[in-house]
Amino acid sequence: MDKNGPFQTYDDRSDAAQCEPRLTALRAELAKRGLDGFVVPHSDEYQSEYLPESGERLAWLTAFTGSAGAAVVFKDKAAVFVDGRYTLQIKQQTDTKLFEPRDLVAEGAAGWIETAAPKGARIGYDPWVHTAAGVEGLRLAAERAGATLVAVDGNPIDAVWHDRPAPPTAKAIPHPMNLAGESAESKRTRIAEDVKKAGGDAAVITLSDSIAWLLNMRGGDTPHTPFVLSYAIQNADGSTDLFVDERKTSPELLKHFGNAVHVRKPEDFVPALDALKGKTVLIDPNTAPAAISDRLTKAGAKLKRAADPVQLPKACKNPVEIEGSRKAHVRDGAALTKFLCWAAREAPKGHLTEIEAAKTLEGYRKATGALTDLSFDSISGAGSNGAVVHYRVTNSTNRTIHKDEMFLIDSGGQYPDGTTDVTRTMIAGTPTAEMKDRFTRVLKGHIALATVKFPEGTTGAALDAFARRPLWDAGLDYDHGTGHGVGSYLSVHEGPQNISKRPVLQPLKPGMICSNEPGYYKTGEYGIRIENLIVVTEGKDVIGGERKMMEFETITLAPIDLNLVEVKLLSDEERVWLNQYHARVRETLSPLVDDETRDWLETATRNV
Amino acid sequence: MDKNGPFQTYDDRSDAAQCEPRLTALRAELAKRGLDGFVVPHSDEYQSEYLPESGERLAWLTAFTGSAGAAVVFKDKAAVFVDGRYTLQIKQQTDTKLFEPRDLVAEGAAGWIETAAPKGARIGYDPWVHTAAGVEGLRLAAERAGATLVAVDGNPIDAVWHDRPAPPTAKAIPHPMNLAGESAESKRTRIAEDVKKAGGDAAVITLSDSIAWLLNMRGGDTPHTPFVLSYAIQNADGSTDLFVDERKTSPELLKHFGNAVHVRKPEDFVPALDALKGKTVLIDPNTAPAAISDRLTKAGAKLKRAADPVQLPKACKNPVEIEGSRKAHVRDGAALTKFLCWAAREAPKGHLTEIEAAKTLEGYRKATGALTDLSFDSISGAGSNGAVVHYRVTNSTNRTIHKDEMFLIDSGGQYPDGTTDVTRTMIAGTPTAEMKDRFTRVLKGHIALATVKFPEGTTGAALDAFARRPLWDAGLDYDHGTGHGVGSYLSVHEGPQNISKRPVLQPLKPGMICSNEPGYYKTGEYGIRIENLIVVTEGKDVIGGERKMMEFETITLAPIDLNLVEVKLLSDEERVWLNQYHARVRETLSPLVDDETRDWLETATRNV
Repeated sequence: MDKNGPFQTYDDRSDAAQCEPRLTALRAELAKRGLDGFVVPHSDEYQSEYLPESGERLAWLTAFTGSAGAAVVFKDKAAVFVDGRYTLQIKQQTDTKLFEPRDLVAEGAAGWIETAAPKGARIGYDPWVHTAAGVEGLRLAAERAGATLVAVDGNPIDAVWHDRPAPPTAKAIPHPMNLAGESAESKRTRIAEDVKKAGGDAAVITLSDSIAWLLNMRGGDTPHTPFVLSYAIQNADGSTDLFVDERKTSPELLKHFGNAVHVRKPEDFVPALDALKGKTVLIDPNTAPAAISDRLTKAGAKLKRAADPVQLPKACKNPVEIEGSRKAHVRDGAALTKFLCWAAREAPKGHLTEIEAAKTLEGYRKATGALTDLSFDSISGAGSNGAVVHYRVTNSTNRTIHKDEMFLIDSGGQYPDGTTDVTRTMIAGTPTAEMKDRFTRVLKGHIALATVKFPEGTTGAALDAFARRPLWDAGLDYDHGTGHGVGSYLSVHEGPQNISKRPVLQPLKPGMICSNEPGYYKTGEYGIRIENLIVVTEGKDVIGGERKMMEFETITLAPIDLNLVEVKLLSDEERVWLNQYHARVRETLSPLVDDETRDWLETATRNV
Repeated sequence: MDKNGPFQTYDDRSDAAQCEPRLTALRAELAKRGLDGFVVPHSDEYQSEYLPESGERLAWLTAFTGSAGAAVVFKDKAAVFVDGRYTLQIKQQTDTKLFEPRDLVAEGAAGWIETAAPKGARIGYDPWVHTAAGVEGLRLAAERAGATLVAVDGNPIDAVWHDRPAPPTAKAIPHPMNLAGESAESKRTRIAEDVKKAGGDAAVITLSDSIAWLLNMRGGDTPHTPFVLSYAIQNADGSTDLFVDERKTSPELLKHFGNAVHVRKPEDFVPALDALKGKTVLIDPNTAPAAISDRLTKAGAKLKRAADPVQLPKACKNPVEIEGSRKAHVRDGAALTKFLCWAAREAPKGHLTEIEAAKTLEGYRKATGALTDLSFDSISGAGSNGAVVHYRVTNSTNRTIHKDEMFLIDSGGQYPDGTTDVTRTMIAGTPTAEMKDRFTRVLKGHIALATVKFPEGTTGAALDAFARRPLWDAGLDYDHGTGHGVGSYLSVHEGPQNISKRPVLQPLKPGMICSNEPGYYKTGEYGIRIENLIVVTEGKDVIGGERKMMEFETITLAPIDLNLVEVKLLSDEERVWLNQYHARVRETLSPLVDDETRDWLETATRNV
């Protein structure tokens, strides 16, 4: 990836005409291997959200470019599975005569295999791109259909994808102590302790953000995430084996690692698994490739299925990481505020387009001099496009923001000191009473979550409804979670915490960064989302209080469009929160912006 | 049980001196059978909450009379497991030199077996009093300890409990259509449809409330719950086999059942399981005795593990049941209000005792002429006893309500048209500012839950925090759920719904009855709880709303002590709710009470 960007492109990456020759080639390859079917997940060998070009097998085959999905190919039929976000997009992208679009959530690949697989069929899967838990579901489904699930040796798509790009080999660099806040040695030592406590001799770590955090290393193998694609074995003695293409390393990196990190070739990984014979090995069935647990079992290792031991420690940021994130948010907030001032001036003229807006915002972020990537493709949605929750603007969907329309922009930057993710919704002119009512309800929900105090042990699932209640009062809701975890110069989406209707069991812990992003979407008309990042902090002691409480610190700084706020719908406490937040935004950002933006900010953050 | 009561006794049922001879006898019996250990759960063959005397094996052995727990006996050590509610009580009840009190939740019988079982030990369990899921946990624990779990034939406690009472044989009676609202035939037909849809030929139903609902039958085998202890097989053709002691039946009952219900002897049950050879049988691993699934497997039936198919339909009350419950609540509310008037007059004198209060309330309920039992032993707690969440007053704990102390009474009645459960907290004189602050926060939480609108698919877990937030704001909380399901003239505690921090996946559905009972407990000083029952209803359409919303109808009617309300802590909306609720209480109950109560009620429900 070009380090200077542009980090977002607007081309229509998808060509349905390619589906036929590619599907034909795949079927021929399957026939050659004696297979009657094949499962193609969205994921690659590292189960990351953002894939390198070489891992885009699902997009290559089906022309579907969404961030989640799967396909199943049989001899005479094939289906592509997408969730509710992509039901429109799939029809535009794939050749629906070849791939029948089906529901990823209600049915999924396993559900369809159960009903559609021919009896006796041999259905192939590449065990390196499915998790063990995922394979279990597929195997059960195949058995119920009287079919057999067969692990393939070498992905058949790679065999017929003749111009498949080589896997990435971006340079990995150390993530320095002044940003990481804890040495890799200290991290390796405490994870090793946890591995020991769990009765393990070693843990296989496969998630790229876990490895990056564990070794204080960042890279550039994947879009929007500073990952170094690799595998690691964390030994209970504190040493780590890292299996990584040597082109990604450097003398500086090796020095940073020290002696206890053994850098080894990717082809040494499987032999290293074999060498764990007789050992107790921790492996995460929900994130590690099935091929790894299969190999360990075959080698005679004792498997202990447990969550990746790095996930929780990584999610609980230390004070240096939190301070870095605060700084990144000040920088990012100033860039966003310049953009919002510019958009407030330009949009009401009625000729600003979604792409121009996204490019301009990227420019302001780049001008900070600290941006290494966007943390995801900006969602830049005017009018009805704002109602498409995971909208990606392309040259063919690009829409002008008309006067008196709403405009939603959800965006973020990757900075070495922190990852940002922020959504603002503005009105290009004058809003309707309904728009103000809806926006104010979303704001009330946002404030309800931002201000909650909660006892230790509380999960995000327990708090989610606070953000929804003002909408529920009006018979409204939104069909996405209220908050996801955010990494520290890592992925903008990370676990194990979550603030949503899903019953995720992980309690919120001090140092976790989450988004707070309630919304409202009126299909065909407009979308609203107000998103700040929040950090879980130990609450200040309440006088007379008895429990250890926690609360959220809001770290995103940018004005919320007051033209859309119906002040009389706010309670006194909500009004105070809004005014105090805006005062903080004004005081923090004013010194960092140009005169025009400063003047605009003064009005944009006025007391209400 | 005497149909005229008294339904609550106040004797100290427990005698620690019996522990030694009984434990010695049990160990001798185990030795005779070649066992090194034995697991004694609280539950009996029907997994009910309230046990008949003959099922009180844990209490017989350990002298512990709580409503949940377990014991594990080895040759040279034994432990009794209780949860946080009973950590004080267990030390008073059992002989701690013989039974070490341990944590039921953090460790439990399985956890202790894993660490404490001698290698090679043969640990017995009675498969009729453990569920299949429970046995699975015990078996894994035993294996980890290098021990073996062994199913016994005949409970060894029964062999040494020489004066064990005979199992109950109370008469079962039809639950008439004007109360049930749906014929048993209709219920059996739709459950049979569900069994068929799930691919089953039959379902084994073991929970007494499921069987009572399915066959429109009530009885008197267990305290506080009109159950008929029995087992049933619901066949996919709509017919039902009921295995029940013939002394419980009557010509009237048989006529009510009709031809499609085959009443069979209890000793025919196991042969009937054997006869399911080759069939697909639905069985709930979390509620059915392990012995049943073991036997079915041995007989060659195909087991399909699924939730008891009656649970959800039973929980969603029909309009006749809801109307019955409303009527029961009016009747019960009038009785409770008479009591509250009496207590408001007597308690400030400083000589009223907890037992006198509970007896007086039982008297008012009995005077309605419709009471068949209390729905549980009234929790009557003065001052510090109010802080013991599941307090049971006995002659030795009985405490006087002193002037200016709080008094908490949690009680309910079983009426043929409905089951009630209500808690009121009053002040016998003048409250402190802290008491008023805490009471008002509990009330605010109660109102927040009572008034919430929520979309279809919402679980109780998502709503629980609304009831806690006013306490969280002050650094406070309570350590119990906010609401449990309530049966329709069945158990006062029923699933599958729940309003608590526990991530129960069952969405709330129209017709479900739940409790709404936030509280606050200051150990050693006082306890507060405000509990009403609420029914899930389809919400009225909101103008401009887009989603199908649901809401709660509060059906409990009794004044909430205004002497404890700090009005300035209430929002306008909360004040309106309180005044409207009190107006409804006053208007509904005034015609049903005596002059003195009516006068008192006028003041007790005044506008604030």
